[in-house]
This record gives sequence, structure tokens and C-alpha cells, in this order.
Amino acid sequence: MAAIKVHGSPLSTATQRVLVSLHEKELEFVFVNINMGVGEHKKEPFISLNPFGQVPALEHGDLKLFESRAITQYIAHENHEKGTQLLCQGKQMAIVSVWMEVEAQQFEPAASKLNWEIFFKPLFGLTTDAAAVEENEAKLAKVLDVYESRLAQSKYLAGDSFTLADMHHLPNLHLLFVTQSKKLIESRPHVSAWAADITARPAWAKVLAMQKN
Amino acid sequence: MAAIKVHGSPLSTATQRVLVSLHEKELEFVFVNINMGVGEHKKEPFISLNPFGQVPALEHGDLKLFESRAITQYIAHENHEKGTQLLCQGKQMAIVSVWMEVEAQQFEPAASKLNWEIFFKPLFGLTTDAAAVEENEAKLAKVLDVYESRLAQSKYLAGDSFTLADMHHLPNLHLLFVTQSKKLIESRPHVSAWAADITARPAWAKVLAMQKN
Repeated sequence: MAAIKVHGSPLSTATQRVLVSLHEKELEFVFVNINMGVGEHKKEPFISLNPFGQVPALEHGDLKLFESRAITQYIAHENHEKGTQLLCQGKQMAIVSVWMEVEAQQFEPAASKLNWEIFFKPLFGLTTDAAAVEENEAKLAKVLDVYESRLAQSKYLAGDSFTLADMHHLPNLHLLFVTQSKKLIESRPHVSAWAADITARPAWAKVLAMQKN
Repeated sequence: MAAIKVHGSPLSTATQRVLVSLHEKELEFVFVNINMGVGEHKKEPFISLNPFGQVPALEHGDLKLFESRAITQYIAHENHEKGTQLLCQGKQMAIVSVWMEVEAQQFEPAASKLNWEIFFKPLFGLTTDAAAVEENEAKLAKVLDVYESRLAQSKYLAGDSFTLADMHHLPNLHLLFVTQSKKLIESRPHVSAWAADITARPAWAKVLAMQKN
């Protein structure tokens, strides 16, 4: 069996999304660090793996994949008998797909913009845009109102078990907790319990530990 | 077998994405028109189908789905033996997933913004923002440069056959052709041939015919 190689950066949320799926599946893999500070993601050899020049990319034998959510789905399907079951069968899988799309289309745009403005910009010596924060906190609040209703009915987004739909939120959810925007989570009891539950998973702790190396 | 009900608007690109999948699969369905002009998508009964208040939504017996790309995947999986084969098997399906994500994350944000500025705003008596057009044409040009290389290697995005990854582009691609931004397609020979091929599909003609009713 060929080794799984992940090319990415431990600080990139998209890379973290792939790493947590590998840890949930208890898979061995090789991590190839892409130094984004010197633009390695925009040059060969990386852009032969992802022509859009964005981390992460995955190699598994001859197969080359990019886009984090496509990679996590590949890992979950190919290794369905290992580690955590991240998918569902039949019609229930359609519900997982709905909430994976919600993460990508509703949650991520607002959450990642907030994390950029509040967490990353100061790290890079840039000034936070207060108007962008206000606008995206309002957007995220509306999204989380829907999550609050949903999570009052089921423990996880797609039902009673943790799936890819929950897992995909981890990187941006973790960063929100270290910004002022954590109030949006903490003020909603079901969202808050869900966030506490999924960020406490051992697989996520392993992703965070990789940042310290 | 319960009837498939699609709730949406024939002018909504997300609704069109679902409709074309139903026509590719040669499925019968009931179309429930949601009058967005009077805000029906933001009120009951529609928001019980999609709490985010966005068309389309699908009902199939007890199953209620929203997010157009989750719906098309459900339709393609549940009806894999009918009509056009929109999925692939095994590792090739991972490539379909990659290019579905590319459509959602790279193509759609720039294309839909251009279509909003150039096509929809004048319809609603609003003024096109020239700076937003310039910015998004530059973004879309970079995306289509990658498509041009890709489509020089394979007839369709995920390989030799038409899949969901191509199909998801149809609504925004069609609108780009009626704007100044069609130059971005026409100036790239492989993208242009691909766009001509997929917009000529009979299933797409059936979606356009629904707009005239």
C-alpha cells in the first residue's frame, strides 16, 4: 500500500481539515511542510499537485487530490472500516451532504473572514477592519441561529453521530474561540455544547499538537 | 414511490442546477414555484424546508433536502441506473469530488458575482459596480486558465465523461454567455469547446424551456 502524503501547512485551516480526518481514521501518513511564507504553494513542485496554488494537496500512489473537502471524503470512503465512521448509509448520507454544503457555503465564508480579520491580520502586522468584523458577525449570528435550532433536535448536525459535516467545522471553530467572536458560540447553548464536544475529540488534539512541532 | 418535489424558482441558478440533474436522470418531478419577488423563500412553509431561506429545496417522501449540490448528489446516487451516469466509481469519484469543489469554491464565487453585477442588477434597476466587475473578471480569468490546461488533457473536468462536476457549472456558465464576460470563455479554446458541448445538452435545453412557461 502506497503511503499517504499530505502537502500543507499546520497553520492552514484547510490543511487541518484533512489532518483531522486522517487522525479520526487512525491512518499513518507523511506530512510535507509547504512554507507559505516564502510562497512555496505558488511554485513547482506544489502547483503540479494543485494548479490553484492552495494548500493542502494529497498524494496516494498515483492519485493526486486537492480541495480539502474532496480529500476528506476520499479518506472517509476509502477507509470506511477504519477508525471513526464519518459517513452514513443511504438517505442519511444525503443529510450529511446537506450539512457539509452548509459548512462550506454558509458557515465558512463568515467564520474564515472573521478569523482573518481578528486572528491572522494582527499576526501579520495588518489592521483589523472593524466594519468587516461587524458585517460578518451579523452573518455568522444568523447561521448559528439555524445551527442552534438544528442542534436542539439532534446531537450532531447530520443526526446522532459525529460525521464529516461536523468535522469540517473544526479548524474555523477552534480559531473563533480565540477571538471576540466566541460570544456568538457561547451565547447559544446547543451550539456551545456541540462545539465543546467536537473540539474535545482526540483527533483534533493531535492536529493542534502538530502546530507545536 | 413518492413523487420528487422541487421547490424553487426557474430563474435561480441553484434551482437550475437541481433541475438539470433531474432531466439528465430522466426523472418525473413536481415543480413548486417559490415567488422570490414577494419573499416566499423567507417565510413558511418554505423555511421549514430550508431554514436558511434559499431556493431550492427538495422533498422525496419523508426526506427533505436543501443546498443544490447536496441535492444533485442525492439524485445521482439514488438513480445511478437511470439516464446519464453522472458519477464515477472508486478513485475516479475522488477526482469528480475535486472538480465539484473547484466549481463551488473557485468558479462560482467569481462567476456568480459577475452575473449579479452585469446580468441581474440592470434587471432590477440597480447600477453595475464596474470595480467589482473588473476584480471578478480577473479572478475568473485565473480560474479559467487552470480549466484551459485541464481541458487540454481531458474532454471533461473529471475525465472522459460528463459528470456532476461539469453539470454544476451550467447555470452560471449559461449566464456568462449573455454578458461581456463571455470573452473570458471564448478566448480559451478548450474552455470554449467544453462550454459549447455542455450547454448543448438536451437536459439543459429542458431547464431553459421551463423559464419560458
